[in-house]
Amino acid sequence: MIKTMKSKDLLSLRDIEREEIELVLETAKSMEEVMSRDIKKVPSLRGKTVVNLFFEPSTRTRTSFEIAGKRLSADVINFTSTSSSVKKGETLLDTARNIEAMRPDILVIRHFASGAPFFLSKKLKVSVVNAGDGQHEHPTQGLLDIYTLRKNKGSLDGLKVLILGDVLHSRVARSDIQALLKLGSRVTVCGPPTLLPRKFNSLGVEATWDLDEAIKGKDIIIVLRIQMERMQSSFFPSIREYVRYFGLNKERFGKAKGDAIILHPGPVNRGWEITDDLVDCEKSVVLQQVESGVAVRMAVLYLLSSVRGEEEPQGGSR
Amino acid sequence: MIKTMKSKDLLSLRDIEREEIELVLETAKSMEEVMSRDIKKVPSLRGKTVVNLFFEPSTRTRTSFEIAGKRLSADVINFTSTSSSVKKGETLLDTARNIEAMRPDILVIRHFASGAPFFLSKKLKVSVVNAGDGQHEHPTQGLLDIYTLRKNKGSLDGLKVLILGDVLHSRVARSDIQALLKLGSRVTVCGPPTLLPRKFNSLGVEATWDLDEAIKGKDIIIVLRIQMERMQSSFFPSIREYVRYFGLNKERFGKAKGDAIILHPGPVNRGWEITDDLVDCEKSVVLQQVESGVAVRMAVLYLLSSVRGEEEPQGGSR
Amino acid sequence: MIKTMKSKDLLSLRDIEREEIELVLETAKSMEEVMSRDIKKVPSLRGKTVVNLFFEPSTRTRTSFEIAGKRLSADVINFTSTSSSVKKGETLLDTARNIEAMRPDILVIRHFASGAPFFLSKKLKVSVVNAGDGQHEHPTQGLLDIYTLRKNKGSLDGLKVLILGDVLHSRVARSDIQALLKLGSRVTVCGPPTLLPRKFNSLGVEATWDLDEAIKGKDIIIVLRIQMERMQSSFFPSIREYVRYFGLNKERFGKAKGDAIILHPGPVNRGWEITDDLVDCEKSVVLQQVESGVAVRMAVLYLLSSVRGEEEPQGGSR
Repeated sequence: MIKTMKSKDLLSLRDIEREEIELVLETAKSMEEVMSRDIKKVPSLRGKTVVNLFFEPSTRTRTSFEIAGKRLSADVINFTSTSSSVKKGETLLDTARNIEAMRPDILVIRHFASGAPFFLSKKLKVSVVNAGDGQHEHPTQGLLDIYTLRKNKGSLDGLKVLILGDVLHSRVARSDIQALLKLGSRVTVCGPPTLLPRKFNSLGVEATWDLDEAIKGKDIIIVLRIQMERMQSSFFPSIREYVRYFGLNKERFGKAKGDAIILHPGPVNRGWEITDDLVDCEKSVVLQQVESGVAVRMAVLYLLSSVRGEEEPQGGSR
Repeated sequence: MIKTMKSKDLLSLRDIEREEIELVLETAKSMEEVMSRDIKKVPSLRGKTVVNLFFEPSTRTRTSFEIAGKRLSADVINFTSTSSSVKKGETLLDTARNIEAMRPDILVIRHFASGAPFFLSKKLKVSVVNAGDGQHEHPTQGLLDIYTLRKNKGSLDGLKVLILGDVLHSRVARSDIQALLKLGSRVTVCGPPTLLPRKFNSLGVEATWDLDEAIKGKDIIIVLRIQMERMQSSFFPSIREYVRYFGLNKERFGKAKGDAIILHPGPVNRGWEITDDLVDCEKSVVLQQVESGVAVRMAVLYLLSSVRGEEEPQGGSR
Repeated sequence: MIKTMKSKDLLSLRDIEREEIELVLETAKSMEEVMSRDIKKVPSLRGKTVVNLFFEPSTRTRTSFEIAGKRLSADVINFTSTSSSVKKGETLLDTARNIEAMRPDILVIRHFASGAPFFLSKKLKVSVVNAGDGQHEHPTQGLLDIYTLRKNKGSLDGLKVLILGDVLHSRVARSDIQALLKLGSRVTVCGPPTLLPRKFNSLGVEATWDLDEAIKGKDIIIVLRIQMERMQSSFFPSIREYVRYFGLNKERFGKAKGDAIILHPGPVNRGWEITDDLVDCEKSVVLQQVESGVAVRMAVLYLLSSVRGEEEPQGGSR
């Protein structure tokens, strides 16, 4: 197995190879062990600085990265755009270059614009982790989903996965699909026609709006959140109609395989995309996903920090 | 003396026994000693994670807990509702369970709804500290008031305490009363009839709206803040009338015992519930309260973290 | 050379002596060396608490102080007025005294009112660092500018410096001028007449509104930011006119000395006070300023923390 990531950055799961995904999952396993100790902390990133650079509110993801960084003994700095010089007319690149000049080791970036972390990673020498960019990707969410699936299902090879809901706006779906295909799963997406991007067919993903048919025989159901806050126009007539045709409930879930499990990236709109009882049932691994998230992010921060460490002697001073 | 708290949580001073209060006070004494050192830090909570989960703004209390946690070497994470998924329609329990899944050791919760920390504590395995819930209780404020009183007065047995002001909306008053009665003090509350809950009589507390009479011979005056921000309707005609009948001034304070002292939970509205000169006089222990607050919170975090440590082997893995 | 600062506070560069400036610069050099290590951290301030008390938004400066404090192993607490008891009607002094009661070692204060840090420093025993007060001073910005200039130019004695732009509203200009004059530089300020305070002449600073003349033969150009957010009335007809007469562009910069360099405190309004190409050219040391900022602030925190250490035995307990 390889021992380090190939790039200084983690921007998408499209640009990463299967063996790198395996490396992250393997490393995350050790990190999960650290988190089960009485003293949940290792000195791996002591003296390193991780900056959470968030241009879009997200306490959940920010907190997960903050806890991950601190459990590795890094100094973690939160920088959010609400109180920042973005308001004073500074460009994104200038803001990022300014932070880079303070010599952090890793920038964790969430941005409302698809591609912003990619753009910055090419201009900066510091490691960049994409913590969600527009409707593009959310690679650590994809990795934590895979980690959770592995834990529950063992190998993902040949498993049948249904991704249900607002695929169009979902960076989670994009990251999940990339990782699932690389690990050999078969992916179907299901949602209202207005929320299903056509080009997914070319990725080898089946697309359908017939949930009752699509769910049959599936091993894994990934329910996406209805992101009312991202919908500028009306993509479906009403929540009530969405629930009738695309909401996951007990009866529908009964058509999936007997040992099927349910994932959801959160936060959940209970009663909308999924019923209350299903969120809390034993087949739901929603909270396992959150726990895996910290371990996976510890792994990513750890692995990227050692890529940099080895690059510097070659690249010279900056 | 007992050596640990009886519950994994600190929710109210009503549900706690006298010997537990004594344990916190005793432990806080050691913590105050730590704070007087040149290096104000002990490794007691190294590798532990404390999350400040605040659904109501309070920089003062949040800062006090944050400093307390850090002086014990814990990792402290601030999570405030303003930028959180609460806005995205997540339930309180889901938000809390998500955070719990990241494996913190203690959740410090402030919530605008009375009972929210109690509700969560029953659903979560992690320790919960109530940092103020609606108009219910604010137990660490009660404990720091007691700690400050002990420091100035020695035993509280038989002391006469006057709590003055907006008792109805005051979680501080509720916590203070519980602790004072348990430690043997005699409590009188005084304020406008609209701000005096009737049921206090049943607790063994005297209630009156005649301040000039009530203050006579008192050892301790706890002045409450006029919480304009909590008053949805008009509970008294005007600030001017409030000041005339219920504002503490030098003349009135002169009727208390000669060695009486003044407490206030802050922030103070100078000139409203208390005059400027009294806030700053030598009988005022307002800043001592703030200092005690850090020591008391260090004690609470320390004691609860060891309750959990001992519970886990019995309760099994989670 | 002296070994400690003379005051517990750093409030302005007007009130500081040349040898103290030299001490900060010398100490910052060691701190810059720390920042170039793999483990960018020293235990100097372990067990000390630094509070960033910001009454005006400034992620950049706050982040710089936060990173500086953490690299010295201090516990750093961020306290911003937006979520604070300032809203609840507390006076500035009461807020500061409350924080002081929690026993921090250094308060880093940014306030919209000129003189606020000075006022507080006289009332508090804790060390106060002015991180920018109204239109008064921003001493650590002045020090980092000097540090950057020294690094590029060696001695500042006899160098010709042009400060260009909105001098009236600029606390940066005020701090820079104080430091530059103490180190023997010759200072010219240039800007629209409405933005040039008359009294600068009395400091020995030349003032002019003819940029094309003023820039001739200058060694250093410090371009100030157009602070639209501070301008309550209209100080110049339009951005377009400002750019025409006072914007720095390649042609104008060509009239300065051949080895002249450009500084800007950031954030930059590209295309307004300075053209894009100049911000990014090799003569621009804008990002060096940011990097120096962390080293200089580490030096200031370190030096002030030892002043307090020595004062305490004399001053007695507080």
